[in-house]
Amino acid sequence: MNLIKNYQTDLDKLFKPQSIAIFGVSISGLNMGGASFLRKLLESKYTGKIYPINPKGGEIYGLKIYPDIHSLPESPDFAIVCVGAARVPHILQDCAATGLKHIHLLTSGFSELGTPEGIELENQIITISRENELKVVGPNCMGTYCPSSHLTAWGAIPGFSGPIGIISQSGGITQRLTEYICSLGIGVEKAVSFGNGAVLKAHDYLAFMAEDKKIKVIAMYLESIKDGSGLLQLVKAISQTKPVVLLKGGKSEASASTVTSHTGSLAGNLSIWRAFALQAGVTLVNSINEWADALVAFSLLPETLGKKVFIGSGGGGNSVIYGDVCTSEGLDVPKLAEKTMNLLREVVPAVGSIAGNPLDMFRIYQDSTLLDGVLQFVYNDPNIDMVIVDRLIPRNIYHLPDLPDTTPELIKSVANSKNHKPTVATLDSDGGERGLSDEGTRLRQQLCLGGIPAYPSITRAARALMHLHRYYSWKRR
Amino acid sequence: MNLIKNYQTDLDKLFKPQSIAIFGVSISGLNMGGASFLRKLLESKYTGKIYPINPKGGEIYGLKIYPDIHSLPESPDFAIVCVGAARVPHILQDCAATGLKHIHLLTSGFSELGTPEGIELENQIITISRENELKVVGPNCMGTYCPSSHLTAWGAIPGFSGPIGIISQSGGITQRLTEYICSLGIGVEKAVSFGNGAVLKAHDYLAFMAEDKKIKVIAMYLESIKDGSGLLQLVKAISQTKPVVLLKGGKSEASASTVTSHTGSLAGNLSIWRAFALQAGVTLVNSINEWADALVAFSLLPETLGKKVFIGSGGGGNSVIYGDVCTSEGLDVPKLAEKTMNLLREVVPAVGSIAGNPLDMFRIYQDSTLLDGVLQFVYNDPNIDMVIVDRLIPRNIYHLPDLPDTTPELIKSVANSKNHKPTVATLDSDGGERGLSDEGTRLRQQLCLGGIPAYPSITRAARALMHLHRYYSWKRR
Repeated sequence: MNLIKNYQTDLDKLFKPQSIAIFGVSISGLNMGGASFLRKLLESKYTGKIYPINPKGGEIYGLKIYPDIHSLPESPDFAIVCVGAARVPHILQDCAATGLKHIHLLTSGFSELGTPEGIELENQIITISRENELKVVGPNCMGTYCPSSHLTAWGAIPGFSGPIGIISQSGGITQRLTEYICSLGIGVEKAVSFGNGAVLKAHDYLAFMAEDKKIKVIAMYLESIKDGSGLLQLVKAISQTKPVVLLKGGKSEASASTVTSHTGSLAGNLSIWRAFALQAGVTLVNSINEWADALVAFSLLPETLGKKVFIGSGGGGNSVIYGDVCTSEGLDVPKLAEKTMNLLREVVPAVGSIAGNPLDMFRIYQDSTLLDGVLQFVYNDPNIDMVIVDRLIPRNIYHLPDLPDTTPELIKSVANSKNHKPTVATLDSDGGERGLSDEGTRLRQQLCLGGIPAYPSITRAARALMHLHRYYSWKRR
Repeated sequence: MNLIKNYQTDLDKLFKPQSIAIFGVSISGLNMGGASFLRKLLESKYTGKIYPINPKGGEIYGLKIYPDIHSLPESPDFAIVCVGAARVPHILQDCAATGLKHIHLLTSGFSELGTPEGIELENQIITISRENELKVVGPNCMGTYCPSSHLTAWGAIPGFSGPIGIISQSGGITQRLTEYICSLGIGVEKAVSFGNGAVLKAHDYLAFMAEDKKIKVIAMYLESIKDGSGLLQLVKAISQTKPVVLLKGGKSEASASTVTSHTGSLAGNLSIWRAFALQAGVTLVNSINEWADALVAFSLLPETLGKKVFIGSGGGGNSVIYGDVCTSEGLDVPKLAEKTMNLLREVVPAVGSIAGNPLDMFRIYQDSTLLDGVLQFVYNDPNIDMVIVDRLIPRNIYHLPDLPDTTPELIKSVANSKNHKPTVATLDSDGGERGLSDEGTRLRQQLCLGGIPAYPSITRAARALMHLHRYYSWKRR
């Protein structure tokens, strides 16, 4: 990809440093800033060298505190800077002098304040970084995260490595997304919260992650960009090989002003971003849930072009509603082929209404042989591109004895089908007794770990499948 | 309401019978049909007389089984009929002969089959019922449900009485809705699953529930109707006093054919139903979750005309996204009045970005005095009509020690504010570790019981508030 050359991709040391200096480690403020990063690095069993720095010196968590960067026994790979904004330019120059080029600026108090002083200070950072070829993350951000190198200093989620790369202007949102997808068994290879993006920009991280073979899907949270046409060309090139799923913050007028005080930038409007997504093959989402849902689909499901969905539903009313929701989300709910209908009629018990598609599978769930048979018929049906299975939670709200849990058999059926089509499950476990939501979470985790994306509502399942369809249609356009 | 007179509203005995005959109680099929209804009635501590009927006689659960209706010691108030379809006309005539007029037909095998025989049999039921003024629920349905008379024979949810009335063509969906809202502390006064609606129709149940003083909000699930203009006039009249929230099944072409085999009727298309909702002041929803969300809002919140929302959010990125979502759902996210901003600046800690609206309340949650203060300022702000509070779940994913849980203080603040505006909470507990979803469910229950509708996502909170706004705007149009 020739475009990649336009950007700064020498970023390995931001994510896999052998040694880290932390500026601004204070014994008197253990819960904030540098000391907190230090503690979390130790907790996450980071194996490289750590050099806490504070002019006062001393010792913390058994480590010596150095007064400045010049007194370290080596020039570390990476620095985390947690000092006041006014001291940042000086520290950058110090780092440059010792050859330390990869730096994360946690510090706030720059262009996001909207004051002349803040903007001037950010400009100084930009100038120093350019002159010394510094690779600076931030300012005003949580920095880098990489479970495979135990660089997971952001809080209580150690996480684990997997197919996702995250590029984000919000640390809180990145934490939430990481927690969400990791709980479903989908890991994160690298994430970066880059705040104001004064030096390194979304473009640079994108170009870097495009070349990272471990990353299969890129998640982005952007509030603003400074070079839209460059980003468009770059994302369009990357989308040929990896899906890019974008949560764009500040699409509305109200939030555009929030963006300015959050990351000091201008947001742009919704129609521009829709056009951007269409051209660049980007999956545009509106909420953290929808973002996670799409990422899970892209991580676990095979390519598909079509959008003709088969719905195995539980109950007559549910079948009707599920068909409505899939249609309103843009999927097609076609009739099954006559051959499939004949096969179904042979194996499905006569009790209960067979409407074809959706199929009321209420009684089929109880018999894993039937369940497997129905899936095979449907996978062989040329009218069908994808499958939604309403994974009823076994519970006795119906006039039936307890239902057996056929989840393991469902996972086996899908995994063993050589011709299986994208298959997802829905688990309607929201808003019941407490045991229900817990059981729903357990089953979602079980299904996702078994390779079947599982969603808490038909609406979210249908939307994730539409994202899958749109991306692969764009890719093979 | 003069329109009410056009319909059959003498339906009390369907919901509050002093005695019940159950046709088709079989000792050999304890889990199905009549025996199951009988067992569930006993479990739910129904206090009236129960008369099981089967030509073979015998005894079940300590009760005598009578061979037919003529051998009972009295004419019961209500009959539940669980025999084969072919025997139903005869049983209806028997009931009529003894003066028993209120009857639920569980039995399937009528017009929903689409066969000439099924349609003919349903026509016989209609004729017999007309000639004898029978009040027949069904056929092909779960019948009536009324916790205040211990008539809760539908499964594992005894439920409790509250402000909701449910009129539905699907038993499964009614069960799910009941379970959902009861788990949030919102009870159901009366519900009816009426299937094919051969004799009593949606119109009759609507007219009946319109006059029921215990019912404040009516939920409907309709797959089809046979007198659309009559329903429009009736609902429009009822909407003047009670919100009607409609989940319409079979809006899509695909589901319209499912409807035919589910309840033997024609569904009509989406644009017709949208126009219907606009004219009749009906709240039209697309899923069970959205249905429950609107019902909770209508049950707990005061009237409101405006749609200018204040968002108390947790974190910078969240604030941006929450503003976007509210705007895309149709709410306005205005600037706060200058007076409010001045008051906020005095009490809110300087740390963290104050963007006004949304307000990043991350640190405010930890101090219930601050939380109460912010709410008071906002309730007094003439620019604001409603409030969304992002109820952060205390958890240590941020660089902070454990956050205290200020939920009880939030509930108190809202309850004690004399001028409080519609206020809802969001709980982002979906898709994390198992403990998180469980804690989210617990907090949602706690908040709803405290009078604050609580939703698992900002999207669902915003949509529920839009439904509230639209209905009250229609009402005062």
